[in-house]
Amino acid sequence: MTQGTIHGVGLGPGAQDLMSVRADRLIREARHIAFFRKRGKPGQARRIVEGMLRPDIIEFPMEYPVTTEIPLVDPRYNDLLSAFYADCTAHLDGLSASGEDVVVLCEGDPFFYGSFMHLHSRLAAPVRIVPGITGMSGAWTASGTPISWGDDVLTVLMATLSEEELARRIHDTNALVVMKIGRNLPKLRRAVEAAGKQDCAWLVEYATMADQRITPLAEATDVTAYFSILLVHGQGRRP
Amino acid sequence: MTQGTIHGVGLGPGAQDLMSVRADRLIREARHIAFFRKRGKPGQARRIVEGMLRPDIIEFPMEYPVTTEIPLVDPRYNDLLSAFYADCTAHLDGLSASGEDVVVLCEGDPFFYGSFMHLHSRLAAPVRIVPGITGMSGAWTASGTPISWGDDVLTVLMATLSEEELARRIHDTNALVVMKIGRNLPKLRRAVEAAGKQDCAWLVEYATMADQRITPLAEATDVTAYFSILLVHGQGRRP
Repeated sequence: MTQGTIHGVGLGPGAQDLMSVRADRLIREARHIAFFRKRGKPGQARRIVEGMLRPDIIEFPMEYPVTTEIPLVDPRYNDLLSAFYADCTAHLDGLSASGEDVVVLCEGDPFFYGSFMHLHSRLAAPVRIVPGITGMSGAWTASGTPISWGDDVLTVLMATLSEEELARRIHDTNALVVMKIGRNLPKLRRAVEAAGKQDCAWLVEYATMADQRITPLAEATDVTAYFSILLVHGQGRRP
Repeated sequence: MTQGTIHGVGLGPGAQDLMSVRADRLIREARHIAFFRKRGKPGQARRIVEGMLRPDIIEFPMEYPVTTEIPLVDPRYNDLLSAFYADCTAHLDGLSASGEDVVVLCEGDPFFYGSFMHLHSRLAAPVRIVPGITGMSGAWTASGTPISWGDDVLTVLMATLSEEELARRIHDTNALVVMKIGRNLPKLRRAVEAAGKQDCAWLVEYATMADQRITPLAEATDVTAYFSILLVHGQGRRP
């Protein structure tokens, strides 16, 4: 029997019609889909494809055993997640071995800070990747302003870095994107201030979706969604 | 009369089915398209949409008066391009004033180092942007390896920067994307070597297109297409 293919399919930033034509076709034709979600939640990836699926779809929700309850540095975090990814991989490899194709729904672009990468590195089955529009493209589009011009340097940072490291790198770039903000917002705000960029930093939440919101960082409240991205637009060379 | 809208539409990295569903619909329904191209060439953006256009389409090719014939630092370069963008803008504003919508074809993502940005900043007409899959997403997908993990720092550089600046920044990042390579390849290669990353740098040409090619930087010849992207993959935290 021919092995099935595991498709890691980028969904883009959130609006259904911002996924690629290739992704749209694969999702509408899929017999099997798989997606990550937080335990007890419907899951953002699953929500994006609502209304697109075959009536006989077989769904495989992959529920994180832990998200922010244990700090990243705790060794139990690594052990729990590693076992979880191994279990998910075994299930997908099993489907492939029985000849089934599976579409794994990936928010944004699968190879850009994506959860699917942890399956990709473990899967024995054939894998194909469909790139997607990143969340950061959605964010700078929502901001109404280009992110980078001419020979601007663009730096992408995770707010999980130390305050000192954030401040140094935010100071030393033209254009900036910061992701994984959540509970790191107060630290990130201090780092942006230390870098002297508090007046040109924007927080974009739920970009391209119905509840899209753009706030100057200075006015942002302490609580922000995980789906938020900080932007500083480049001001580079332009004729 | 209602003003028409100028749509800046991201085409993605090159494969036709990697444009978004929204872009696909706008392009197939468009009465007017506009696109940049080098004088005497069909133009990459126009090539991507071949076969998708209405029979009664009205095309507005915007031909660069200059690309690499005059150095960027020459003031004539700025003057020529500035006048060119002003002319293109006047034409598009005129169409909008007469009630016509126009789709401007943009390779990659319109707000990420895009030529359309020079029209966007000048247009009086209403503008809407459709984000696209970036060329760099196409490149790292083609490489078969994720670009960034955990809290990896990703730096995007233009090879037009000085050799010293390139080397410093290539040394000081986890994951790397370099664009606008072309005739800067020898300089870029020296900078990558100075940063000690020559063994993990990949040159991706024509990602997602029929003639896609991936070469270790060390083996790349001096002549490379403008459509090439250099990658160094991040190796960050993973359970």
